[in-house]
Amino acid sequence: MQQQALVAGIDIGGTNVALGLVNKQGDIIWKDSFSTKQFDDFTLLVSHASNIIQVAVLKINSGKLIGCGVGAPNGNYYSGAIEYAPNLIWKGIVPVAELFKNALQVNSIVTNDANAAALGEKLYGAAQPFTDFILITLGTGLGSGLIVQGQLVYGYDGFAGELGHVIIEPDGRACGCGRKGCLETYCSATGIVRTYQELSNEVSSISAQQIYQLAADGDKTALQAFEITARRLGIALANAVAYTSPQAIILFGGLVRAGDLLMKPTKQYFEANLHNLYRGKVKLLTSTLKESDAAILGAASLVWQNEK
Amino acid sequence: MQQQALVAGIDIGGTNVALGLVNKQGDIIWKDSFSTKQFDDFTLLVSHASNIIQVAVLKINSGKLIGCGVGAPNGNYYSGAIEYAPNLIWKGIVPVAELFKNALQVNSIVTNDANAAALGEKLYGAAQPFTDFILITLGTGLGSGLIVQGQLVYGYDGFAGELGHVIIEPDGRACGCGRKGCLETYCSATGIVRTYQELSNEVSSISAQQIYQLAADGDKTALQAFEITARRLGIALANAVAYTSPQAIILFGGLVRAGDLLMKPTKQYFEANLHNLYRGKVKLLTSTLKESDAAILGAASLVWQNEK
Repeated sequence: MQQQALVAGIDIGGTNVALGLVNKQGDIIWKDSFSTKQFDDFTLLVSHASNIIQVAVLKINSGKLIGCGVGAPNGNYYSGAIEYAPNLIWKGIVPVAELFKNALQVNSIVTNDANAAALGEKLYGAAQPFTDFILITLGTGLGSGLIVQGQLVYGYDGFAGELGHVIIEPDGRACGCGRKGCLETYCSATGIVRTYQELSNEVSSISAQQIYQLAADGDKTALQAFEITARRLGIALANAVAYTSPQAIILFGGLVRAGDLLMKPTKQYFEANLHNLYRGKVKLLTSTLKESDAAILGAASLVWQNEK
Repeated sequence: MQQQALVAGIDIGGTNVALGLVNKQGDIIWKDSFSTKQFDDFTLLVSHASNIIQVAVLKINSGKLIGCGVGAPNGNYYSGAIEYAPNLIWKGIVPVAELFKNALQVNSIVTNDANAAALGEKLYGAAQPFTDFILITLGTGLGSGLIVQGQLVYGYDGFAGELGHVIIEPDGRACGCGRKGCLETYCSATGIVRTYQELSNEVSSISAQQIYQLAADGDKTALQAFEITARRLGIALANAVAYTSPQAIILFGGLVRAGDLLMKPTKQYFEANLHNLYRGKVKLLTSTLKESDAAILGAASLVWQNEK
């Protein structure tokens, strides 16, 4: 009987680790998740993850693990490490690829979570028809992955594609990176909350989800918050096109759940602000992957993209 | 006696056409220029240029033409055409590569002038040590060429790298492209003139060169115009790093002649606005090519980069 090749896809977030086993067709054969913060020591996280992956592989009829892909904030493809991630509990440089390679005895590859999402979308999602596209994740922050001629752009040191930290408003909102006016302080779940709070002169806590609900119910301030967010985002995406001239930009993440409330005005501002060289040529799409699966598929794609 | 392989490098600008014969080492063996506007019909320009190139080749001992590279505004690498260039007299789509190929009977390649400049800098100038860099031309407008892992980024349709048309100020200054607030309306020879005119409340005509002279003589308004230009440029270049994570950004063109008056504050604003992932890692340099030769070398590099 033929063995079924499987890749472990592991997404390491500040709160949870999601992991799964993915076959070449992009089916998630098994998946699980656990809380990140229980592991002060990253090597213990690797042991735990590797154990449950190995047990899962054994239970799959004729399954064979051929590789491991890891997506994580500040994950560096070249070094295989998480480097100085501000939102994770492990400080400094964490040699992720090496640890998983030793534990699982297979080739292990690391990149940041948005890059992994871009690869997942290319192999299994909305970006399958495209050789040149940009993936944007709109979650707590704004992440991005640039694909040029079918290849992820890692840049010289592995940290290309940090579009969330393009300064769109000098001396603007304070950003977690220590600077001011970064795109993600305006265009993200956190960004729309700040916009709503500014508009309503309230600092009481509200979630992007609640703002969406208010907007769906016709609340003017909430609608205005979406409009302002969409304008900033539409212009930022039009600017991104001037860099790599892609066929499409694909949006993914929590804020995209707002659907037309976000996408309709964003598309309008995007088209209106595109240089005429690009106008009408660049598709603005949303991800077609299930949100709960996308991070696992993206991480596994780091290995599957090389197994043609 | 061995033949000397030569490439014709042709730079087509709104005012002048500069052309030359370049050997593999980047020596310009012969060069010439003529006025662009005498040729309403582009085919006549091609005939004229091809004739003087062929005569020049014949006069060079054992010279042999092996290719032709053309840099031009809105030059498209994929189509080999100049497409809808607003600042040229020929409208619509001009099949430049095909016409030169027929006239010179050699492989002919086209791209936009800033992309050509980036290749020239890579083969023969300040970018020789780098695999990942961005070239910025600061002339009448702002052009750019992105090099990622040694390759020019053309984008899906051949129009990548239009950083001059990134909108940095929504509803800002009117741009020749029909939109508002593009980077080149602030950071270019034309841009600094507009800044100076705004600061001095004068619309009388002044050149960037004159503003430079005033600033060098200590004129406060002129110095302020450089400071404002440098701040906008420094932030824009720091933002560009977040896209492709290059080793260096290389500045070229008329405005760069201002030397430290422009470069010193630009470097300060650049470093101050870089995300900490990149800080201290990205060199900000000026071109090492002679300005009069760079366009010819850049155009010739389109062919020479493939002749290793």
